[in-house]
This record gives sequence, C-alpha cells and structure tokens, in this order.
Amino acid sequence: MLRTHTCGELRMEDCGKRVQLAGWLQRSRDLGGMTFVDLRDRYGITQLVFNMDINAELCEKARKLSREYVLQVEGVVSERSSKNKNLPTGDIEILVDGITVLNPSKTPPFTIEDNTDGGEELRMKYRYLDLRRNCVKKNLELRHRLSILIRNYMNDLGFMEIETPYLIRSTPEGARDFVVPSRVNPNEFYALPQSPQTFKQLLMVSGYDRYFQIVRCFRDEDLRADRQPEFTQVDCEMSFVEQEDVLQTFEGLIKYLFKQVKGLQLEDFPRMTYADAMRYYGSDKPDTRFGMRFVELDDIVKGNGFAVFDSAELVVGICAEGCANYTRKQLDELTDFVKRPQVGASGLVYIKYNEDGTFKSSVDKFFTADKLKAVAERFKASPGDLMLVMAGKREKTQTSLSCLRLEMGSRLGLRDPFNYSPLWVVDFPLLEWDEETGRYYAKHHPFTSPKPEDYPKLFTSPGEVRANAYDLVVNGTEIGGGSIRIHDRKMQNDMFKALGFSEEEAQEQFGFLLGAFEYGAPPHGGLAFGFDRMCSMFAGVETIRDFIAFPKNNKARDVMSESPSPISEAQLEELNIALIHKEQ
Amino acid sequence: MLRTHTCGELRMEDCGKRVQLAGWLQRSRDLGGMTFVDLRDRYGITQLVFNMDINAELCEKARKLSREYVLQVEGVVSERSSKNKNLPTGDIEILVDGITVLNPSKTPPFTIEDNTDGGEELRMKYRYLDLRRNCVKKNLELRHRLSILIRNYMNDLGFMEIETPYLIRSTPEGARDFVVPSRVNPNEFYALPQSPQTFKQLLMVSGYDRYFQIVRCFRDEDLRADRQPEFTQVDCEMSFVEQEDVLQTFEGLIKYLFKQVKGLQLEDFPRMTYADAMRYYGSDKPDTRFGMRFVELDDIVKGNGFAVFDSAELVVGICAEGCANYTRKQLDELTDFVKRPQVGASGLVYIKYNEDGTFKSSVDKFFTADKLKAVAERFKASPGDLMLVMAGKREKTQTSLSCLRLEMGSRLGLRDPFNYSPLWVVDFPLLEWDEETGRYYAKHHPFTSPKPEDYPKLFTSPGEVRANAYDLVVNGTEIGGGSIRIHDRKMQNDMFKALGFSEEEAQEQFGFLLGAFEYGAPPHGGLAFGFDRMCSMFAGVETIRDFIAFPKNNKARDVMSESPSPISEAQLEELNIALIHKEQ
Repeated sequence: MLRTHTCGELRMEDCGKRVQLAGWLQRSRDLGGMTFVDLRDRYGITQLVFNMDINAELCEKARKLSREYVLQVEGVVSERSSKNKNLPTGDIEILVDGITVLNPSKTPPFTIEDNTDGGEELRMKYRYLDLRRNCVKKNLELRHRLSILIRNYMNDLGFMEIETPYLIRSTPEGARDFVVPSRVNPNEFYALPQSPQTFKQLLMVSGYDRYFQIVRCFRDEDLRADRQPEFTQVDCEMSFVEQEDVLQTFEGLIKYLFKQVKGLQLEDFPRMTYADAMRYYGSDKPDTRFGMRFVELDDIVKGNGFAVFDSAELVVGICAEGCANYTRKQLDELTDFVKRPQVGASGLVYIKYNEDGTFKSSVDKFFTADKLKAVAERFKASPGDLMLVMAGKREKTQTSLSCLRLEMGSRLGLRDPFNYSPLWVVDFPLLEWDEETGRYYAKHHPFTSPKPEDYPKLFTSPGEVRANAYDLVVNGTEIGGGSIRIHDRKMQNDMFKALGFSEEEAQEQFGFLLGAFEYGAPPHGGLAFGFDRMCSMFAGVETIRDFIAFPKNNKARDVMSESPSPISEAQLEELNIALIHKEQ
Repeated sequence: MLRTHTCGELRMEDCGKRVQLAGWLQRSRDLGGMTFVDLRDRYGITQLVFNMDINAELCEKARKLSREYVLQVEGVVSERSSKNKNLPTGDIEILVDGITVLNPSKTPPFTIEDNTDGGEELRMKYRYLDLRRNCVKKNLELRHRLSILIRNYMNDLGFMEIETPYLIRSTPEGARDFVVPSRVNPNEFYALPQSPQTFKQLLMVSGYDRYFQIVRCFRDEDLRADRQPEFTQVDCEMSFVEQEDVLQTFEGLIKYLFKQVKGLQLEDFPRMTYADAMRYYGSDKPDTRFGMRFVELDDIVKGNGFAVFDSAELVVGICAEGCANYTRKQLDELTDFVKRPQVGASGLVYIKYNEDGTFKSSVDKFFTADKLKAVAERFKASPGDLMLVMAGKREKTQTSLSCLRLEMGSRLGLRDPFNYSPLWVVDFPLLEWDEETGRYYAKHHPFTSPKPEDYPKLFTSPGEVRANAYDLVVNGTEIGGGSIRIHDRKMQNDMFKALGFSEEEAQEQFGFLLGAFEYGAPPHGGLAFGFDRMCSMFAGVETIRDFIAFPKNNKARDVMSESPSPISEAQLEELNIALIHKEQ
C-alpha cells in the first residue's frame, strides 16, 4: 500500500503517529513561512503543513505543486493550532517530511468543488474529473449503498438474483429495441432487452418462485429530458401470490430502505385507484405531499351563459389556500403558465374569496355572488383562498390542471423533497385506446391480467376493464410498477385478440413464452423499480443523470468517449451490413 | 399467498396442522385404495395422500392429474407410516381434503429428474423445463449465493459497486466487439464492452480507489467448446496499491468464499512464475493437485544417435508413478492420445523402470541401460514407474506434454474436483510475438505495466520484459487475472510504441483514457474473475453453461427463443443499415 491511512480518518488521538497519505492536491495556501496543502481522497481532506524554517527545500517543492497533482506524503500527525470544525479531520494536520509526486496534472478545466465553475457540457466531457467532486461521489455512494441494502433484503426474503441474457430475441413490434448484428449468424440480429419481462416469467414457469435482479435495460427512443438509453431496474417476480402479497412485500422493501437510508419509519402506504388519482389529481402519479385536490363543478357552473364552461366536458378546479391576495401580475403569470405548450390549456378562471367574504373573479359577469359562494362551498374554501378553475375535454383538462396544481404546490412551498409521501396507485385500466392507430394497446404489457370481475367485459367494453396492475408513486414520481400476470392460456389468447394480434402474430412474437405456459405456469406477478429514479428520490434530487457514473446526453451520446462513432468498413463487412446514407 | 408453507419445510412437529401447499406434480402412485402424489416446488417435495375410503371423488380427481400439473392443495399434516429418510420432509405427508388445478400441463418432452432422459439439445430448447431439475436449480442457487457473498465481502472492505455503461465506444481494433447501430445518431455505432477495463481505470482517475462490479461482458468470437458470447465478470480495481496488495486482497476473498461455501480453510496460495509454470508444467495454468512435474533431459539424452532427440529444441518428460506395468495396448493408447490434433505431438517415448530394476523402453536400441538409469535418476524415478518423454520445438513440446500430464493425472485419479489447489501465476511476459502479423501484442492488455527492472528492455529485447501481471489458477483453470496498470503517460506512450501503434492510432483508440491520465492518474491495479467459471469451480463441474440460466449454444444461438433472428425491413431502414447477402 502506498498509504497507511486515508485522508478522512486521522483524529486527535492519532497525534504523534508517523503516517503516509496519498491523494490529490485540493488547494494550497502559501503564508510566507508556512505552506498549507489540502490533500483529498475518496474519504476526505487532510491538511498538510510545510515549514520554511524546518525544511526550506521541501517547502519550496510543495509550493511548486498544482491542483490535482497526485501526491504521496509522509509525516507526523499533530494538533492544529486553528481547528476547522467543518472537517472531520479538522483537529489535526500532518507535519510533512517527505513528498513524492506520483503523477502531475494539467490544470483541470473546472474546479473540483461542489460549486464548480464548470457547465454541464464541460463536466460531461471531463466526466472523470466531475466524478471527483464530493457531491457527485455522494450520489454514487448512495447508489452503491442502496444496491447492497436491496440485495440483502431480497436475499433474506428468499429471493434469488438470477442473471438473464442481454442478447435476446428481437420482437417484430420492438421498434424501440436496440439490435445487435450477429457475425456468426449472418443477417440475423439480437436485441438488447427493454426489460427482462419474458425471462422472469419463464423463471416463474421454471419454479424459481422468488426472483429479483438489478439489471440494465435498453430503450432506443427519442430521449425526453431525463431519460437514458440504458437504465437500471430492480426487477422482481413472485409465484403463488396475489396482488396484496406483492404490494406488502415491496412496501416492506421500500420502508426498510427509508429506515436505513433516511432514518424514517414510514406509515403504511395509502392506496388510491387509478380512477381516483385521475379524478382528484389529474395524474396517475399524484404528488400527495399536499392536498389541493380537484373539485368538479359542472353541476354548479353550467348553464350560466359562460360558453367556455357550458361547452366543456369537464369544469374542474383547485383551491389555493391563502392566495386571495394574488396580484393581477401573479394571476397573469399563472394564466401564462397554463397556456405553455407543455401544459396546453387555453385559459384559466380565478375566483378570489376575499378576506372580507366578498368574491372577485375573472367571470364575474356570468356568475352571481351566490353562485360563487356555492362554488366556494364546494371547494370548502375559506376567506383568503384563491380558486383556480379550468374547463374543456375531460382528460386534457385534468392533465393541465394537474400541472397547475404542482406549480401552485411549488409556489406555496408544499413540495419539500425530504418530505416523503409514498402511494400505491392500483386498478389501472388494462387497455389504452390509441387514436392514431385506432386500436387498443396494453397499458402495462400484454401479460397483465384483468381483474376477474372485469374479464367478461374484455370484448364488450374493453376500455372499462381494470387490470391487476399497480404503481408505486413517491412525491409525484413513479418509482416502480407491476402487475399480476396472466398464467392461463385461454385468457392470454383473449388478451391478444383484444389487442388485435392474430394468432400467428402472437406466436411469432411470444411463441416460446406461450409454449412455456402450456407446461404448468404458476400464478405469478411482480414489479420493477427504476433504480436510477429511486436513487434520485432518496437524494431528493430531480435528475437521474447525477446518479449514473457515465451517463449519456439527450442525444444518447457519451460526449466523454465520443460514442457512438463510425465503425470501419471491414467491420461492417464482417457483420454483413452496409450503411444507408439518407439525406438529412 | 396461495400457500401457507413450501413443499420443503414441513416436519414431524407440524403434524396436525392444516396447511396449504402449491407446486408441481412430480410423480403419482396409484395403490388401489390409496393414491400418493409427490408435490414439488423450489424448496423440496412433499407427499400428498388421497384415500378412496375417505373421499372417493377427490381421490379419483387426483388420479387424473398428470406430471407437471400446477396444484394447490389443502389438508392436514400427518406422520407417515413408512418414512423416507432421503427426503427432509420424509417423515410426514398431507392428508389432502381439497385440491385446485392452478394450471394443467402438457406432458414434458423429458423427465424432470437429475437423471433425465432428455438430451442436451432438447433440454436447451425447453430450458424453462430443464431449469426445474434439482441439479440445475442447485447451480443457480450457488451462483446467487456466491454473488451475495462476494458483494458483501467487497462492501465490507470499502469497495463500491459502480455500474459502467453497456453502450460504449467501439475501438478500431475491436474486431470482436458486438456493435449496436444508433438510430438517433445515423451511421454511428455503439459497442458492447468486452470488459469495463477503460471505465474502471477512469474511476481510479476519479478517485474511487476501491471499485468492483459483477458485470456482463460480450465477445463476438467464434465459440470454442465452453465459451459464451455474453459472460459475467467480477471486475475489481484499486488505487495506491502494489501487486502484493492486490494479491492479498483477492486471495482473502477467495479464501472467504471457500470457507463459506465449502467449509474449507485454505492455506496461503502458493506463487509460481510464468517461466516456472511453463518449465515444470508446460502451461500458464498448471493443475497443481498433483506433481508429475516436467523433467528436462537434453543434456543426458542428446548425442546418442536418436535423431528425434538430437534434432529437438527440447527433450522433456514426466514420470508416472507405478505405471511400469502398463500394457502395450495402454502405451499405444497414450501414443494415440498425444497424436490427436488437439495435442499435436508426433510421437511418444516410454521408459519402463521395471520392478526388478531393469529398463524397457521404446528407444532401447539407442540407449544403454546406464543411460536409461541416468534418465531415471534425473526423474527421481523408482522401480515400477513409467517415464514418458517427448521432444521437439520447445513451446509446442511443453504444451503437448502438458496435455499428456493432465491425461495421466486423470487416469491415476489425481484430479479430484473437490480437492482444491489454488495458485497465483505471476511475472507474465508483457508482450507476445505473433508470427502471423509479425508484431508484438500485449499479452494482457496495453495498460499493463512492465516490471520496473525490465522496463529498460522494452525496445532492446521486448520479448523478455516481464509484466506486473498475475492469474489466479485453481485446479488447472484460470479463475481470474489482472495487473498493475501503467499510470505514467511516458511509459504508456512507450508501451504503444512497442506495440507498433502510431501516436494517432493510440489517440484514436484510447484518446479519452490517455487524456484522463494527464489529470492526475493514481497508481492502480486490479483484476477480474470469470464469474461463470468461478461458479463451476465451486461446484466441481467443468462446463460453465450449467451455471447460466439461459445460455447460448456454441453457435451463439439461444435455441429456446430462436435468437438471433431476422429483423424487419422497416427496422433496418430506421437504423440506416442494409443487409449484405454473401454467398455461403
């Protein structure tokens, strides 16, 4: 070892010890007779002292060292005269009597500090330097810790981690599959898994009744703000269980993690149906850290001559407590907010319930004070509150109002990232109608089972069939989701029929899984957590990119290694493929 | 839960309890008045009893069930009259009073038994049924257990598991890279990593001084007997260490695993130089469970008129104790063995040291008894021993004799798979000459450091430079290997020069890593274990395929899902690639 201790471990009780440390030069201060150097490694920072009076040559040498040099030093631990209470090693320093430059460093393009002067792009290009920053290191440490905790918890419950293949069969519908040409099997391709769904179900057929895996997944889609082409899932499946068993098992896991990582003992997670989530929050992942639930107003406000309301499929609003004093400017800001394309509303109606009991609204000419009072009563509003109302097509209005609700929650400081509000959303619809293609798609995936009581409606009113599907939502973010699967061959065939698959298509895509189901598939179900997202949630941070050691940007590029990149003609030839150059 | 207990847990003390079990019908025996059914799940087998006298209808129902049906049963635990000592649950049985068929099963194409009647190909096609067999399950359980043990051991030592990308930059020399076309970045490709080598070195530059990862790796090579296109490594790297630190750390890990998994407390692992391994065993992964070391004979046997010896670069042999009584037939077998193309020798000389002290050899006409006696003395042979001698080019002869040594070890029962003989092979050559291309290649990889004392020879006698590289060998199988890396830019440039890389080529291939090295790379080194191989070693089994849930065959195909497979024209088009159809 090139060191006897790390830069994070020496304390007062070590004074007098002769030690060797190794690390990076964080900072150097030259005070004339003395030179102080902060030496940094993964574990902390230790102050080194060089004294002109004691060893002028060594001190001169120390003064020539620059930031990020890799040093090995030898010396004696001693008590500092001016202690640094912010540093665990702040009581001591090393009186250095020997120094070796293990490696010099060019001046880094940005400072290695939590508050760095480097922009996102520069830091991604030099990710190996960005990773030196304490705040990034903390994220990766949290990720490592979570993975260890999860694995041991699952292992203790008898779950086996089983590795499933990364080179799998591409499915004709797999437009978002990354594919891999096979050299050994010319003109044939593997796909990279979007999830190990098929394999984990096969493992259930094989009798491995408690499976999990922390596993990479791949999706070749146009990247939205915070998506990555490769991401990590905590993938789980169980046999001989019902929905309640799955929820209990993984609620236990999440509670355990909160206890271990945050020291929080969470209450049992509330459950909410998908229908209620949409009705009261306009979202299938409601942020329940605050109330401000939707209130529907159709029966009160329709028929008063206000065309926007009268022609709407839904009139719905929220009540922002204590916001009646919002200025014209603030109200205009909110109107502008809802008109942004991401929110997509055409307008916003406000009703101020003034402190003096009067009302002031943007629709005063259509509504009497009594009407507005009735509205306020529906909202259970009090004087001083502000009601914000939107109208239009049901789903679109709900979605827009959901955005406004979150915005108001943020403005009112109701969304503390360290106040955790977990929630199971259950009873998702089995199918989802797609206007564009004019057919139903599986909301979850084609192996999700319908609720037994809704199964008869699969062909009569498919849109109404609810699934044994569930999501875990924390603070408005989906952390995971899953379902009880279909294990019955007839039900699976019906499902494919409802999805408009011919028997051949179903066979072509899922043949080997359907085949497996004929040899004794047990009842089973499971879920998958987004591990990157889970890490960011525990850290109270929005972006997942900060929790991935080497992330890609929103063009799916790694700007550090300049990947993807062209490959040679010889390599293409060997793989039996040629490039098509399209006009851009 | 659809069960109260598993099929492996009920014992005498549970008698009288009402239980629910779920599982697969393993076997059914109809004894007239009684029907016995063995119900199997992941945890074991429990006997179910149906009695015609008690419940004829239920008994009739039970008789109609076939192998691998999925059943849920309810009943009372009771003591068996004839106990089965081979089964942990063999003292009890379930008097069943309710049965539900959760799923029927077609008759499986082979029996779900350790000694199945299914051949390799059939079992791979129905891998999900093969995985039900107890012997296969045990393998995956071992794999899971090892992964948990490794992770916790490494975590306890302060190693962080950090996930590195699977979609990485392809390198021009990466002929064995699997590549992935990028849809979002037309005509550009990712590669799948052959190992996370570059990233783990970057992590060292970033200051994560103890990294590990259990990680999938990919290699698109023509598959030899027991290779897989995707395989798993336990990948590790440390900073501020020397070779001795790495060896000690991972010897500790392996000893810990042996203790936990096999209950064995291993002695410190011996070390052997590559030179000695070649000289005494003709292999860089010697099986040291038995001696039979090579003995070189040139000085004794040359110049006696036997042209085969006289013209040889090396005359070398082994002594098989107690084999002087080998028959003509047995000796012919050995000669045939060494002449097989895989061994590649042109012949074999034997010298029998008979019990009566006389000699009998295939080269009697060239050698006097005294000469043969001198040879025997060199071998330290005793009467009753058989000496087997080969001659020819040095390396080729060593390799052939190594095969013969292993064959003799097997014949003499000296290779018990449960007798573990670990060994560090150290001081590997840095470079390896390739006749075909007429240049040196890195024996390990281009970042491996030379031994300081050999560095000056890098350009004068490159073939003699030894590396700080090491392999862990157990019972003749390489379990892992690694090296101390180059952290100095000048040394790295010299290394590339020795490998015949131009500066541009080095920059093109490893630019971002070389760039990173200029910002303060610490001294570092590490190793990687082949995890599939490690599992098979602990199980005392030869093939790694048995330790992979869904392996591919030696044409890199998954015969279960029929992967790889053609993909659609639309998908190709979207990826901007076209197929080239070559004549076969």
